Amino acid sequence: MRIVLDAMGGDNAPDVTVQGAVAALAKRKDITMILVGQKEVIEEKLSGLSYDKDRLEIVDAREIITNDEAPVFAIRKKKDSSIVVGVKMVRDGQADAFISAGSTGAVLAASTIIIKTIKGIIRPALASMMPTIEGPVLAVDCGANVDAKPDHLLQFAVMGDVYMRVVQGVENPRVGLLNIGAESEKGNELTKAVYPRLQQMPLNFVGNVEARDVPNGMADVVVCDAFAGNVMLKTMEGTACALTTLLKRELMSTTLRKICALGLKGAFKNFKAKFDYAEYGGAPLIGLNGCVVKAHGSSNARAIESAIYQAAKFVDGKLVETLRTQIESLSDQFGE
Amino acid sequence: MRIVLDAMGGDNAPDVTVQGAVAALAKRKDITMILVGQKEVIEEKLSGLSYDKDRLEIVDAREIITNDEAPVFAIRKKKDSSIVVGVKMVRDGQADAFISAGSTGAVLAASTIIIKTIKGIIRPALASMMPTIEGPVLAVDCGANVDAKPDHLLQFAVMGDVYMRVVQGVENPRVGLLNIGAESEKGNELTKAVYPRLQQMPLNFVGNVEARDVPNGMADVVVCDAFAGNVMLKTMEGTACALTTLLKRELMSTTLRKICALGLKGAFKNFKAKFDYAEYGGAPLIGLNGCVVKAHGSSNARAIESAIYQAAKFVDGKLVETLRTQIESLSDQFGE
Repeated sequence: MRIVLDAMGGDNAPDVTVQGAVAALAKRKDITMILVGQKEVIEEKLSGLSYDKDRLEIVDAREIITNDEAPVFAIRKKKDSSIVVGVKMVRDGQADAFISAGSTGAVLAASTIIIKTIKGIIRPALASMMPTIEGPVLAVDCGANVDAKPDHLLQFAVMGDVYMRVVQGVENPRVGLLNIGAESEKGNELTKAVYPRLQQMPLNFVGNVEARDVPNGMADVVVCDAFAGNVMLKTMEGTACALTTLLKRELMSTTLRKICALGLKGAFKNFKAKFDYAEYGGAPLIGLNGCVVKAHGSSNARAIESAIYQAAKFVDGKLVETLRTQIESLSDQFGE
Repeated sequence: MRIVLDAMGGDNAPDVTVQGAVAALAKRKDITMILVGQKEVIEEKLSGLSYDKDRLEIVDAREIITNDEAPVFAIRKKKDSSIVVGVKMVRDGQADAFISAGSTGAVLAASTIIIKTIKGIIRPALASMMPTIEGPVLAVDCGANVDAKPDHLLQFAVMGDVYMRVVQGVENPRVGLLNIGAESEKGNELTKAVYPRLQQMPLNFVGNVEARDVPNGMADVVVCDAFAGNVMLKTMEGTACALTTLLKRELMSTTLRKICALGLKGAFKNFKAKFDYAEYGGAPLIGLNGCVVKAHGSSNARAIESAIYQAAKFVDGKLVETLRTQIESLSDQFGE
């Protein structure tokens, strides 16, 4: 399996991208990593690290797309950027998956324009693995379609179901509709239109799920438009971060507390790990004719490594083929 | 000041409503509490409690509206419900404020239909005080308008600004637009349409605020449609709850940890209080010709008590009058 990693993308690149790739190579002997980016920069970061040289390739790409560039414009102009070059390798069959912690918009635009969507898919979705007390939940969509239509959400449900089956090994994923009340008639125009149609789908549809219940693990897949999904995802991140800050302040406020806290170091570490996005990999872009994973912009090496394993499962599980078959068999459900 | 409290509303009513009212009477000598609901039930809960009998009245209302009843239908049918009777007292000038922990939909419908909106206000908003590490933020709207239009959001911004000034005493409230990116061109159709118009308003508009930054206290007022606001509010609640559960599990896992945790009891208590909705009162319904506060359905006595103080500040600050003047002076900004 050949995985291309955008060595230049992300707040902490290229250090953490190179480190993450090297760590993954050590654990997974069946993958080859292709680092795309400025060759001499990557080589410098690799120097001194020990890794299997037969399974690490560098592909030179001189340009870098930043977060403040208009995505579509940037990918048209910067043909020699790490994102465009990496995505093209997936399109051309030179690699099985592309991972980037760079500009979400640019990764989305490049993937959609270059790799293209699966026949029958209206719009790809940027899904996100979110931590819950019972293990991860996949929120679809969290970043691609802010003004989604009912048909989009129906397809997101199918995407999420297939993803959780083949990538996460969940047998009969519980698919919930993100809503502001549990009752079927609750919600905005979009969710009210989607609810009865989701009931007709061959899915384990568990009805509306309130945002309050998502962190409790009430569903395996949460379907939503990208605006609501993004708000949910970011609120969770922000709340976890704010609570950790508050807890730290309290624990460090007196000497006695500091001593007691020391005895709980292991407990706090486990606690933190449970809601650590670094363990969950990145956000898969689902609905394309290829595997693309968007890692968090602030990824550390561990998060990059997790994203690589995730991409490997994406490829191993034949997500693209399974989704293609599924969407084809359900084609009469869409286009109302 | 006369405050009507729906004695029958909420998961833990009438115990906590009666207890909350009695606690508030002890602390605020300038208020009279009117408990509306089934007289004999309220009297029974009051028996044994000590309070100033001159400042507590009971108004009998035989019916109770439950959460599963269709709001508009319920308030039309149950004219003798605690919600309808209580709201009418505000309309008729027999009371200055109404508080209920009962059905949100019924409180909203009854208030809008009976008390009516301030002239010029298109739709009232259910705002919510959310905890942050820097003190509370007001999210408007969190429950009333799921399919909001740009004009609604502009008015929510004005409502939030006035509320934070007169009720919370914030001098120049920072008003942010809940969005999925910080840049002005980010967002869905709604936020993109609202952004430039918010810039034209006489407000301290601080631009887009991502959900991740809300718990860090990046704004005093966060403007959003009720769907997004509800998702943000409930995600915060759910995440705080899930994290507390996880932390407890870790702290109770070994005897040594239990002992260390005992030494940190005070720290954990302070930590919990910071994100405890019970300290923040309820959700004010803004834009009506009167003061209505919706307390959390699962309110305890402390939360009811906080909601009473909040309603008192709402009345003291002359929110209705201030908002009326402000909306009138800005009337040329709306109706595009």
